[in-house]
Amino acid sequence: MTTDFENAYPNSRRVFVESADGTLRVPFREVQLDGGEPPLRIYDTSGPRDVDCEEGLPAMREAWLAHHPDLERVQRRLDLHPDRVPPALGRPTRRGRRCVTQLAAARRGEITPEMHFVALREGMEPEFVRTEIAARRAILPANINHPELEPMIIGRAFKVKVNANIGNSAVTSSIAEEVDKVRWAALWGADTLMDLSTGRDIHETREWVIRNSPIPVGTVPIYQALEKVGGVPERLTWEVFRDTVIEQAEQGVDYMTVHAAVLLRHVPLTAERVTGIVSRGGSIMAAWCLAHHEENFLYTHFRELCEIFAAYDISFSLGDGLRPGSIADANDEAQFAELKTQGELNRIAWEYDVQVMNEGPGHVPMHLIRENMEKQLEWCEEAPFYTLGPLTTDVAPGYDHITSAIGAAMIGWFGTAMLCYVTPKEHLGLPDRDDVKQGLIAYRIAAHAADLAKGHPRAQEWDDALSRARFSFRWEDQFNLALDPVTARAYHDATLPAPAAKGAHFCSMCGPKFCSMRISGEIQEAAREAGMRDMAEKFRKQGSTLHSTNEPLP
Amino acid sequence: MTTDFENAYPNSRRVFVESADGTLRVPFREVQLDGGEPPLRIYDTSGPRDVDCEEGLPAMREAWLAHHPDLERVQRRLDLHPDRVPPALGRPTRRGRRCVTQLAAARRGEITPEMHFVALREGMEPEFVRTEIAARRAILPANINHPELEPMIIGRAFKVKVNANIGNSAVTSSIAEEVDKVRWAALWGADTLMDLSTGRDIHETREWVIRNSPIPVGTVPIYQALEKVGGVPERLTWEVFRDTVIEQAEQGVDYMTVHAAVLLRHVPLTAERVTGIVSRGGSIMAAWCLAHHEENFLYTHFRELCEIFAAYDISFSLGDGLRPGSIADANDEAQFAELKTQGELNRIAWEYDVQVMNEGPGHVPMHLIRENMEKQLEWCEEAPFYTLGPLTTDVAPGYDHITSAIGAAMIGWFGTAMLCYVTPKEHLGLPDRDDVKQGLIAYRIAAHAADLAKGHPRAQEWDDALSRARFSFRWEDQFNLALDPVTARAYHDATLPAPAAKGAHFCSMCGPKFCSMRISGEIQEAAREAGMRDMAEKFRKQGSTLHSTNEPLP
Repeated sequence: MTTDFENAYPNSRRVFVESADGTLRVPFREVQLDGGEPPLRIYDTSGPRDVDCEEGLPAMREAWLAHHPDLERVQRRLDLHPDRVPPALGRPTRRGRRCVTQLAAARRGEITPEMHFVALREGMEPEFVRTEIAARRAILPANINHPELEPMIIGRAFKVKVNANIGNSAVTSSIAEEVDKVRWAALWGADTLMDLSTGRDIHETREWVIRNSPIPVGTVPIYQALEKVGGVPERLTWEVFRDTVIEQAEQGVDYMTVHAAVLLRHVPLTAERVTGIVSRGGSIMAAWCLAHHEENFLYTHFRELCEIFAAYDISFSLGDGLRPGSIADANDEAQFAELKTQGELNRIAWEYDVQVMNEGPGHVPMHLIRENMEKQLEWCEEAPFYTLGPLTTDVAPGYDHITSAIGAAMIGWFGTAMLCYVTPKEHLGLPDRDDVKQGLIAYRIAAHAADLAKGHPRAQEWDDALSRARFSFRWEDQFNLALDPVTARAYHDATLPAPAAKGAHFCSMCGPKFCSMRISGEIQEAAREAGMRDMAEKFRKQGSTLHSTNEPLP
Repeated sequence: MTTDFENAYPNSRRVFVESADGTLRVPFREVQLDGGEPPLRIYDTSGPRDVDCEEGLPAMREAWLAHHPDLERVQRRLDLHPDRVPPALGRPTRRGRRCVTQLAAARRGEITPEMHFVALREGMEPEFVRTEIAARRAILPANINHPELEPMIIGRAFKVKVNANIGNSAVTSSIAEEVDKVRWAALWGADTLMDLSTGRDIHETREWVIRNSPIPVGTVPIYQALEKVGGVPERLTWEVFRDTVIEQAEQGVDYMTVHAAVLLRHVPLTAERVTGIVSRGGSIMAAWCLAHHEENFLYTHFRELCEIFAAYDISFSLGDGLRPGSIADANDEAQFAELKTQGELNRIAWEYDVQVMNEGPGHVPMHLIRENMEKQLEWCEEAPFYTLGPLTTDVAPGYDHITSAIGAAMIGWFGTAMLCYVTPKEHLGLPDRDDVKQGLIAYRIAAHAADLAKGHPRAQEWDDALSRARFSFRWEDQFNLALDPVTARAYHDATLPAPAAKGAHFCSMCGPKFCSMRISGEIQEAAREAGMRDMAEKFRKQGSTLHSTNEPLP
């Protein structure tokens, strides 16, 4: 029986690079190639595939966490419903006696197993990973209650990462579907996952999701807090929110979006906008602020939140509740006022050694993208930036994975550390399996294009391997090296299905007589024989000029 | 019976803006909107739809051409096969007694009907159109034998244009399919069309294509010339090529790709490349040069070619036969050597008052894109640039409409005048109907994003109209304003099919309780009532600070 990994990536296997002491096993996807080419190893997020989801993934980090001197076992605040969560999934819960974050360790000069793992994964030195975290230019989101995690890092010195959103909504839902989405998103290259569920059984669904997720899981706790108060924003309180955060912290949520930078005084700045406030969290907090005529309780209680986050090593993803929802609203006063407040909150989080990244827009035309990155670097002191797209035009609902991949690639090149994907259903409906895949492919393209443009040391070897396969007509290698091998093969076979065509030195685009690659291959061969560089020099010296003609028109 | 236009664009109709003297009727797509919004007029390429393709489109330009003092009737060099082309399609053929190009007219200070038409279409002054053409910063491709054309302009002061390639190949084919592709490409927004057919009945197929094309048609005559000599590049001669050009000129081809800048001395520069020469035309000419050890005959006979082009007003699209076919080969010596030669040929074409644009790459990582544009502007003296993408990574065959839309949007913003589309089948197979549509949508997104970034005066009104519809939950308007209305509606209806959902103030993404747009709309209403700008000022003055807490962790 083939696994979904083997179906998705023919001729690839999951291999592991071990640390010198044998305690770490870092996964890669290794693609076997023909033509004497060495196999290519590609960063791999897919996680263990042959796992019963009722038992959850192997708890790889357990060995590291079990002996952690600053962790203590605690009773869960909110039990899991026994009918809905099998006993094997309900793992023991821990809390830090004091700050237990990767940032605190990094600042003490300590290289954690997670940092070692990430260094092997990115092909960097462990000490470099530590210094980037210590300088708060990178975060390593890894809740102590998420032992199933394969650690990864988010920072602009590293590979640009991609986040996928999943989650049911009030309109549709199912636990099994949500777990399947996790596996599916990881298979297609999601580096992190935001669970935006808002429906029934939200607590139990999240347990299933985290126990089966090899990648960091993020949430927006205000959604669940709002459910608890019947969906009425003005009924929200700090206490309800705090309890929700702790319940999720105990489950192992790695990072949380908190809209603490939406201040009461910012809200009126959105009044003249074409599309007002388009962030759910932002609009909830704005509604609360206005109803009470009080400052956002996430802002006023931010230090308490930092203390909780420090005890579980949850990372902040400071929400951009006032991000522009249209080209007309890009880079406006409301957006930048909130970004400045994010910078203020970053500094407070860092006082508590809590890791933090900043969320960014949204809808931004190309010529205004760079300003977003520059202001974030300045005001937020180089904390990792995490943007939704941005979408570079509003006119293509149904294709916003493309309108936004353009902006995402650009802002990734400029320094954004993680890109939140957008699916073709954005603005229109809930993404299904294929939409999730389409969104991920578009965003891995954007992230990889950004890695190439930034000069990430290992990015181009993938392009080169594929291009060599293409030029030497190794069709199978070209398919297998593709981001989506099955689609590449299917598109080829749509015109030339015969097995013999996979050995052909042409394709259906030009046909055998016109194949430029074939002609060019012959030219290269001739060139090598004739020492053509010398020949070129000769031609350059003798020059060649255009002759004029006085012939009548033919 | 509804036409394909009505099916593709519900609630839209083709309307005409008339010139003051009533002689010109310029088409637009007008979208009817609800909510008291005025209808929106969008640039329209679709052409007359209720036409029998056996009779061809109305010859709109005939009235302008019939009285042209410098045109004479000529007998066709190559007759059309009467079994394959109905008599109604075989239009009379003309030739210029002297140079009859739009450039010559512009330089004489003359505003032609074509320039007037384009000015109304772009919302610019006719005199501005004339000066851009006279300065060679724009071309108006309009063969005197293509009276069915709705004139358009290619230049960086105007809307960024999109070219679609069609054409059978040696592997598949059919005349009816080719004509259908023309109509389909125009319907989905192709500004020009390159007919790259290489199969049987190539001459007759082209007649059908041009007679039914409201948009300029381009070709690569070397393909047909190569067919005439049995597909063997070294058998090509200037005479065979020249005759092919004249045959196509008489049919009405508006612009021709000519690989005259692939010089003998450039060929060895490709020897060390990862993907050699990937342009069909480039590899054919390179093979010819090497076989004969002579300079490219397109270069040595370039002045003769200019004389022919001047007599029909064919525009040069100077091919980039040495464009990079992989990230590794981008911006290399071979590529830039050819670009410099293109600049040299531009100046010769302009001596003959022939219009010219320059083709560009290809595969280019984001950080090397700007250099392409800058060198082209400098070396080619601001002639319009016409690029294929560029693709910003090699790793995503099957999704190269996306890898390249990223590069296309960027280079469009930097100043490229026309973008040659790439379909999802690029590198893999022949595009079918849906691939053509997918490629066009991706490229219209890129072109429109570029127009926004360049600040084209009329670009943003479309985004604003759509965003207003979105914010006020006018779902039908949102669909109808989309680049692809039917897909936008289908994606919405996949989750919420009930007709009542089209009036709902929420969508399936958040459900009714969480809708940020709804909450935000309420905030805006409250703000208007309360004069919230004043309130904001008050809050700013009194300030709001974070209070610290010494409470133990909850």
